[in-house]
Amino acid sequence: MHATLSRRQLLGTGAALGALALTGCHTSPGKVKAMPFSQTAGQGPLLLNFNENSLGLPPKAQQALADALPHAFRYPDQAKGDLMASLAHHHNVSGEQLIYGNGSSEILKMAVDAMAAADAQLVMPDPSYGVVEDYALARGMKVIKVPLTPAFETDIAAMKAAVAAHPGKSVVYLCNPNNPTGLMLPQGELNLWLGEASGNLSFILDEAYAEYVNDPDFVSAIGLTRHNPHLVVARTFSKIYALAGLRVGYGIAHPAMINAMSAQASIDNANLAGCVAAKAALEDPQWVSLSRASNQQSLAMVLATLEELGLKALPCNANFLFHQVSGDTALYQQRMAQAGILVGRAFSHSNGWNRLSLGRPDEMKTFCQTLIAFRQKGWV
Amino acid sequence: MHATLSRRQLLGTGAALGALALTGCHTSPGKVKAMPFSQTAGQGPLLLNFNENSLGLPPKAQQALADALPHAFRYPDQAKGDLMASLAHHHNVSGEQLIYGNGSSEILKMAVDAMAAADAQLVMPDPSYGVVEDYALARGMKVIKVPLTPAFETDIAAMKAAVAAHPGKSVVYLCNPNNPTGLMLPQGELNLWLGEASGNLSFILDEAYAEYVNDPDFVSAIGLTRHNPHLVVARTFSKIYALAGLRVGYGIAHPAMINAMSAQASIDNANLAGCVAAKAALEDPQWVSLSRASNQQSLAMVLATLEELGLKALPCNANFLFHQVSGDTALYQQRMAQAGILVGRAFSHSNGWNRLSLGRPDEMKTFCQTLIAFRQKGWV
Repeated sequence: MHATLSRRQLLGTGAALGALALTGCHTSPGKVKAMPFSQTAGQGPLLLNFNENSLGLPPKAQQALADALPHAFRYPDQAKGDLMASLAHHHNVSGEQLIYGNGSSEILKMAVDAMAAADAQLVMPDPSYGVVEDYALARGMKVIKVPLTPAFETDIAAMKAAVAAHPGKSVVYLCNPNNPTGLMLPQGELNLWLGEASGNLSFILDEAYAEYVNDPDFVSAIGLTRHNPHLVVARTFSKIYALAGLRVGYGIAHPAMINAMSAQASIDNANLAGCVAAKAALEDPQWVSLSRASNQQSLAMVLATLEELGLKALPCNANFLFHQVSGDTALYQQRMAQAGILVGRAFSHSNGWNRLSLGRPDEMKTFCQTLIAFRQKGWV
Repeated sequence: MHATLSRRQLLGTGAALGALALTGCHTSPGKVKAMPFSQTAGQGPLLLNFNENSLGLPPKAQQALADALPHAFRYPDQAKGDLMASLAHHHNVSGEQLIYGNGSSEILKMAVDAMAAADAQLVMPDPSYGVVEDYALARGMKVIKVPLTPAFETDIAAMKAAVAAHPGKSVVYLCNPNNPTGLMLPQGELNLWLGEASGNLSFILDEAYAEYVNDPDFVSAIGLTRHNPHLVVARTFSKIYALAGLRVGYGIAHPAMINAMSAQASIDNANLAGCVAAKAALEDPQWVSLSRASNQQSLAMVLATLEELGLKALPCNANFLFHQVSGDTALYQQRMAQAGILVGRAFSHSNGWNRLSLGRPDEMKTFCQTLIAFRQKGWV
């Protein structure tokens, strides 16, 4: 059983990553050519740990950046306005239902701040994307972390019970599909619960991976925001749109909730680079389908290898896969890092399982070869 | 007497600016050649209203952006770490005394949030950079706005009285040099007061324009932060470093205050473009001196014109100038806009005066010619 460590905590000591880059097997000259992989700065380990889209920056976003950046000495209001107009069109919502976030992480913060109250508690699944806990604690809220079921499903019944047991206001965080499991929430049960949103029961729906979902049952909660002001949907350009470094997220909610979030926001929170790149990526009709196809190819390859090795995996509706490693997860991650592949971090209640980001097919081929070699050593 | 309108409020309706761009005299073909000016997108009015550095993006920042942006599909932790290390070296402080902000506007928010308390009030000068008022109100704090003296000086005596009259905690915001006046705070009086910082009296020092100050008496409050945890200094890359569009600010404070601010921060708040551009700009030894020299040349030109016209101006320690327009400020701004020059917005308690951003000398030549033409029409 591990404590949940966030990317922020992991990266608090940058030295550890640097050391890996120097000691990983990929730095041995003979292997670099044989195993191409996506890197941040032309060298270093294979990065399958942060759920980035390793196809790289969308070409149209690169062009938009080249065109716009000479003007970065000006405040970026126009570019922000253009992006928001494009998003309104994309989602068929009014501009009053949208708010820009410096990454969806800032949307989550604005939502928590807007929903905070003296008697409020936060109810969230565990493990899940954990940052809302920090935001709630910063507002003095009580935090109830509800473990996933033994099948790693978000335990809506238990979460409802936690809400019912609290005399004051509840703010419920749900990640759909959930991170790190990749599992979609049960759509019927979810929709029934979201229908109960009220002044005493607010929902924050994190749909960071929505564009990767294959399951036809998936329905975004965006449609519910038009008439219910107690619900926020968070979306991001860090995942399928491949812009994690530029920090663009957005929230969709009822205009009344958008106003409440706006009152809690840091002003001028949009940067020119993120705005122009996001707009270009959003308006590229091929980028999402290309990324989904690449992701499916990588997924199929990894699933075949896992099946060959008799390691279970959960159904995948994201650009990462939660799978068995038959042994201690921390030891597995450490051995992978020593082999030049960063495959994750610790999540609570899930020892023996690991979250694997799905990189490009060529990257996943390297991973599969390494996993097979691990089996030969008796490590998985 | 005008209400103070922020850039955010002004830009809430982007349509107004767009209309100006179409109707300003600069769009008439015959005049575009005669009056070169800096623009955001190759056309539109001369922008002397937001205190940007219209020399444009530092060349080394442009190169750093071109090198780094293909990697923007990754999270930007390494680039952020590199920038913070460079800042620590630049200011000769430890990394534990620094925090990144998505513009200094986010530093101000973190500071207010970290200092907020049930019994706290915010005390601020009026007019000044007004966003802290919004942040304090979002935390339920009382806000006391203390008018500048008739000579437009920050009225420290009156602010101290407001602090003394309050039984609870006071958070004091000071902008040095003040925006929109450009006046430095009286250094001796200021330092005495800052020495009183305690658990019951916290200070937020906004030094956004510090790099432009000419007065040798100016002393940054950075030195005081090492031993006093009740003081935050906010700095920005939006002004002399010409990166307003990329949203990079930073705070300097005692490690205990940095921790308190960090607990209130949105995670992953740094973007790759801002980080690499800021580091390159900071490490360019010529950029600041070039910008200061250009600013001085523009200032001298404008001061000569104002003197010729018998219009008073305050001493200038920034990249903007507060000067008389002998008449209603709103009407003056409107006429300037009709002539294709945006010169500002309304500030409280200062009708008859205007804040003029100092652009490049060629831009200020256009402004001076226009001002002289206004005198000929009897408008100033």
